[in-house]
Amino acid sequence: MRLNRADKANAMNAAMWQEIRQAFDWVDTTAAVRVAVLQAEGKLFCSGIDLAMMMQMPAQIADDCEGRQREKLRRVILDLQDSLTSLERCRKPVLAAIHGACIGGGVDLVVCADMRYASSDASFAIKEIDIGMVADVGTLQRLPKLVGQGITRELAYTGRKLGAAEAQSIGLVNRVFDSREALYAGVHEIAAQIAAKSPLSIRGSKEMLNYARDHSVADGLNHVATWNAAMLQSDDLMAAMMAGMSKQQPQFKD
Amino acid sequence: MRLNRADKANAMNAAMWQEIRQAFDWVDTTAAVRVAVLQAEGKLFCSGIDLAMMMQMPAQIADDCEGRQREKLRRVILDLQDSLTSLERCRKPVLAAIHGACIGGGVDLVVCADMRYASSDASFAIKEIDIGMVADVGTLQRLPKLVGQGITRELAYTGRKLGAAEAQSIGLVNRVFDSREALYAGVHEIAAQIAAKSPLSIRGSKEMLNYARDHSVADGLNHVATWNAAMLQSDDLMAAMMAGMSKQQPQFKD
Amino acid sequence: MRLNRADKANAMNAAMWQEIRQAFDWVDTTAAVRVAVLQAEGKLFCSGIDLAMMMQMPAQIADDCEGRQREKLRRVILDLQDSLTSLERCRKPVLAAIHGACIGGGVDLVVCADMRYASSDASFAIKEIDIGMVADVGTLQRLPKLVGQGITRELAYTGRKLGAAEAQSIGLVNRVFDSREALYAGVHEIAAQIAAKSPLSIRGSKEMLNYARDHSVADGLNHVATWNAAMLQSDDLMAAMMAGMSKQQPQFKD
Amino acid sequence: MRLNRADKANAMNAAMWQEIRQAFDWVDTTAAVRVAVLQAEGKLFCSGIDLAMMMQMPAQIADDCEGRQREKLRRVILDLQDSLTSLERCRKPVLAAIHGACIGGGVDLVVCADMRYASSDASFAIKEIDIGMVADVGTLQRLPKLVGQGITRELAYTGRKLGAAEAQSIGLVNRVFDSREALYAGVHEIAAQIAAKSPLSIRGSKEMLNYARDHSVADGLNHVATWNAAMLQSDDLMAAMMAGMSKQQPQFKD
Amino acid sequence: MRLNRADKANAMNAAMWQEIRQAFDWVDTTAAVRVAVLQAEGKLFCSGIDLAMMMQMPAQIADDCEGRQREKLRRVILDLQDSLTSLERCRKPVLAAIHGACIGGGVDLVVCADMRYASSDASFAIKEIDIGMVADVGTLQRLPKLVGQGITRELAYTGRKLGAAEAQSIGLVNRVFDSREALYAGVHEIAAQIAAKSPLSIRGSKEMLNYARDHSVADGLNHVATWNAAMLQSDDLMAAMMAGMSKQQPQFKD
Amino acid sequence: MRLNRADKANAMNAAMWQEIRQAFDWVDTTAAVRVAVLQAEGKLFCSGIDLAMMMQMPAQIADDCEGRQREKLRRVILDLQDSLTSLERCRKPVLAAIHGACIGGGVDLVVCADMRYASSDASFAIKEIDIGMVADVGTLQRLPKLVGQGITRELAYTGRKLGAAEAQSIGLVNRVFDSREALYAGVHEIAAQIAAKSPLSIRGSKEMLNYARDHSVADGLNHVATWNAAMLQSDDLMAAMMAGMSKQQPQFKD
Repeated sequence: MRLNRADKANAMNAAMWQEIRQAFDWVDTTAAVRVAVLQAEGKLFCSGIDLAMMMQMPAQIADDCEGRQREKLRRVILDLQDSLTSLERCRKPVLAAIHGACIGGGVDLVVCADMRYASSDASFAIKEIDIGMVADVGTLQRLPKLVGQGITRELAYTGRKLGAAEAQSIGLVNRVFDSREALYAGVHEIAAQIAAKSPLSIRGSKEMLNYARDHSVADGLNHVATWNAAMLQSDDLMAAMMAGMSKQQPQFKD
Repeated sequence: MRLNRADKANAMNAAMWQEIRQAFDWVDTTAAVRVAVLQAEGKLFCSGIDLAMMMQMPAQIADDCEGRQREKLRRVILDLQDSLTSLERCRKPVLAAIHGACIGGGVDLVVCADMRYASSDASFAIKEIDIGMVADVGTLQRLPKLVGQGITRELAYTGRKLGAAEAQSIGLVNRVFDSREALYAGVHEIAAQIAAKSPLSIRGSKEMLNYARDHSVADGLNHVATWNAAMLQSDDLMAAMMAGMSKQQPQFKD
Repeated sequence: MRLNRADKANAMNAAMWQEIRQAFDWVDTTAAVRVAVLQAEGKLFCSGIDLAMMMQMPAQIADDCEGRQREKLRRVILDLQDSLTSLERCRKPVLAAIHGACIGGGVDLVVCADMRYASSDASFAIKEIDIGMVADVGTLQRLPKLVGQGITRELAYTGRKLGAAEAQSIGLVNRVFDSREALYAGVHEIAAQIAAKSPLSIRGSKEMLNYARDHSVADGLNHVATWNAAMLQSDDLMAAMMAGMSKQQPQFKD
Repeated sequence: MRLNRADKANAMNAAMWQEIRQAFDWVDTTAAVRVAVLQAEGKLFCSGIDLAMMMQMPAQIADDCEGRQREKLRRVILDLQDSLTSLERCRKPVLAAIHGACIGGGVDLVVCADMRYASSDASFAIKEIDIGMVADVGTLQRLPKLVGQGITRELAYTGRKLGAAEAQSIGLVNRVFDSREALYAGVHEIAAQIAAKSPLSIRGSKEMLNYARDHSVADGLNHVATWNAAMLQSDDLMAAMMAGMSKQQPQFKD
Repeated sequence: MRLNRADKANAMNAAMWQEIRQAFDWVDTTAAVRVAVLQAEGKLFCSGIDLAMMMQMPAQIADDCEGRQREKLRRVILDLQDSLTSLERCRKPVLAAIHGACIGGGVDLVVCADMRYASSDASFAIKEIDIGMVADVGTLQRLPKLVGQGITRELAYTGRKLGAAEAQSIGLVNRVFDSREALYAGVHEIAAQIAAKSPLSIRGSKEMLNYARDHSVADGLNHVATWNAAMLQSDDLMAAMMAGMSKQQPQFKD
Repeated sequence: MRLNRADKANAMNAAMWQEIRQAFDWVDTTAAVRVAVLQAEGKLFCSGIDLAMMMQMPAQIADDCEGRQREKLRRVILDLQDSLTSLERCRKPVLAAIHGACIGGGVDLVVCADMRYASSDASFAIKEIDIGMVADVGTLQRLPKLVGQGITRELAYTGRKLGAAEAQSIGLVNRVFDSREALYAGVHEIAAQIAAKSPLSIRGSKEMLNYARDHSVADGLNHVATWNAAMLQSDDLMAAMMAGMSKQQPQFKD
């Protein structure tokens, strides 16, 4: 997956919001795809929501009745949120490989990924505060569960730029690479490792991790016990066991 | 806001518990106040609950009936908790600037702030364990959501002193400054940055972050979509947009 | 507590799963025990579930009816989970002192402890992915609450080895010691400190920390207020207060 | 407690909203009051929110900025909700004795009471739908937990009048009395019975019932076990036991 | 909406499951539709899932790997559930007008409606138990919230037939009509009443009732306050107010 | 299952609390038992907790330290609760057949059953309020989910006697029989019907109903989809399908 509107600093316009959802729905349903890497063309990773799109929003939700206008606005926001949630809903791991500036909606996007990796020139900013709005497509909900409340609040209230090294130290990105090339090489190696694992188990593990985030440990344990009652006995378990005994690399179906 | 009982090591006596709530209710309702900084006079930041106050508690809850005595005790604790929760309830960000020792009730207090900053001489200790009690005004509930379970438990069970550097490395404080002067200068600069942002958006962001801590991501997304249906269209959005185009600093009403 | 099947790399066989629960039930109910340290004999800390035990599972759950077979499998998993949850259920703190490799079920085990400490040769791996299964006895539920979602997912999807230093930097272990001897000395010193505290307060603090992990802050505050209504007034509070005034070390009953 | 604006059909004006909260805070904190009965003067029980008050709301929340106006509106609604929630927050049982029409805000009010009793001329209507608004002070949240989803939805969507007999058959009121006199006599007798019980136990029972409505059974059991650890051993238990043995009526302190 | 496979006893085949979702998505998005009535052609209301469809399921989920087969089966069930949940997701009220037998999947379907009405010949049966399966598309989750746990369990364990009168007495249906003609006349009259109300307020009320079912009262109050901050000020409120003063019937836009 | 301490009015003494748990653990684990009926010998169904047992409790929890005494008391209550929860935990349906008076702990007991049936001489009373205590073994948590909040509160605050007919009208019992003989005949017939159903499906249905009570509908749907991914394909489904085609009664294994 590549954000590919480099001439517009990868600003997220209406088309891009739709394409993100389509892309990850495709990842989800295409059996041969076992893992996805999200990266971007051009100098910036993503400059956030396209301001032209913001400007058109009043027309999009126009209604003589103030109440209906707000109802439409709420539904537009829910739809944008749903577009990004497609990364979570997708049953395969999504790795974000981030270079350059990742701003506003870009942060909302990458916090939906399973893991985030950065090149040393990467930076992050919750820019919504500087356009006089409450960030509303996921950063305020997901970032605290990645890096804790204290630093999230500083970033959300000040909109300040967070460099790659600090992003790693707080847990926003898993690793920083020296260059964009090293980043892609490194992330694609991790992706390749994941693609070589049992796809059935990877999908189940993602389901469990998504579930655990929003449920108690007791509920999570119940869910995985019921899940494995159904899914534990599989060709992959057999293949992995036998490969283990013969010291070979197992091959898994999609 | 200044803890100002320096002659008593800023021990939290009955008056101080009341004043904390009054102060943050005032911050909440006073339109011109956009951000609050909590700091302390004297050598220590806060030595925790005043032992004299603890000593008077048996008299305060005295009742011939044991059951009624316990009912009163429960209500006293709930009231102390409510005093500290006033920092969270306050719609404006609260920044704690901590120097010297922050002990027992002092920790319960600062974990209610949005962000914590420290000078290099700062230290923290969950001292309740050393007076033979379960900490009951918030540390055990809020600290794990800031620094994780593993280190919280060590601190809660041993009561050991945590220095400023370690406090930063685990995420309890956002940054450590070399001196008390640098601390105040640094925190007031951050506070000034926040005060220059859209107050409406800052209040909304705090609401979202408070809400997200205790709800699922899905519930949080629903809440912010409904919120912005009401609050997105504002003078602040307009002012920020126009300032953005004219490359000027926007001015916001309280 | 010692994992003592060193000749089998401390693989967790059927007997060991039962003994873990018995051991921690004993810790829970034996008044004189105030804290438990979990360590292992031999070169590895724990190599995870015994593969021979996995191999016998089909026989253990055999049933002509596929549905009943799965029902039995679910109950076997629930029982294994319950064995590890005994560390959490035990009212006394459990400290894991980890040396060498801690793999698969070993990770599921140590994330149930209150705190984790390691020697510099320690390493961790969520190995379940490499036997083609979804980890189902607690790692996927508990680890994210210790180290966050981003790094958990990398570890769960790749099964890669995590060294002691990185384990500390992400918060999985509280401290790394230079050698196995230093580890045991260090952990036993922490354990001794805990054992010298009010046992009643330690038990109450663990209850609160367990509760807080899975409830909102508001519910947690209510719980501790009600708890202390019952348990605050105790011999330990008195002993600690008097010791504080006389600058002596208090003595507490179990 | 009497709704006493009979000349205005007991329409709830700004003063009444404040007085309701004051009244039930007074019930809560006045030891000698053990139970409260809510009834109304005049022909109707309550005609709902005063339309004059609704008309003044635009002025009350006026603000140049649309976003701030909505923020104020939200806070006005939260404050009205809080006024009615005072019936739940009050630790003593509240019995509503309803005659004649109970409309709109009147329904929001009585569903906050512990129990509802009616005379045969009583009727209920969720009238908010007929003034083109979503009922926002509690009926839609609390009524389904009293009478189920199916009938609540019919009443909320149609605004139709519900008679006393049907109100009893669906569980909205506990009993219907033939006349207003019989209603008051009957309700005051029930109130007298409650007032003769252990006040400590009545307060604890209300806490448990409030808590159980919004928590799982497991959480509720934990809460009452912790509560009774504190409150079971009481003069009231002793008095009741001894009265039981001597076949006399026990006397309880407030 | 009409179930129209009368020659097959309105058994729900694959096409019907898809059409149900399409129909209610259409109701949701078609502005002019303000309310939906679900009824059925032929002698029975619905005989439940088409057994031919059940028979084809093994082929539909066929996979060499047992684990993947179960994963597919889970996704098939989730998709069927989603089809029925479309009645809840639809923002307009759905009224079910039930005659004759409503069996198995038919019960799963009608418990998703907002309200249920029946002719005197109607009957209900949770027939899944008699085909040796756990009902998995909603009855076991939704029915207890309509009629309570006690009677739900009897019906779910025995599969016994529940007549119209008993269905009303337990709250499953709101009203029983003497004949099928009277049923349609009555339900369409209720639907017409609803269609004459403010559509904006009806949609908001349904949202609140759906939300309240699965959240605490406190969360529900917060949600409606935020909602009305956005949606209260509307043309419908104005129209209703003015109509009220002029004693006329208000006209609302869709 | 028979409560068999008729000479003591089936008062629940220490032995009986243990035996209840043992009995239902036995029902749970004994494959041949498909359903349990709980009934009582003698004139009363159950007179509640044995007062002699209450009198011994102070000795049972005696401790020099007040805090430890309360901790013991809490654990005693948790243990009693756990004894009754064994009815819910038991995977087979439990039918209570109630005659005569069912008082205090007797109500706590029968609300744990799946269904309740009564003879016309049955009566119920939440008698805890009359011994000056908050009911603490389940009635306040479970009864509102059976009969709603309004009537539960009246019964809990007044301790008044509820007759069989009223118990049916509010949904506490499913049916009232004319005599004790008719009750047993009727309940055993229902039990026989349940015993003839697929035991696997009955166990799964009970799991779903228990789960649904304490979770959102969305979580419940997820749980049953995962469950049936494992358990749907079974001999019972096959047997029931084939019996359906051949119009014969299916035979199921335990």
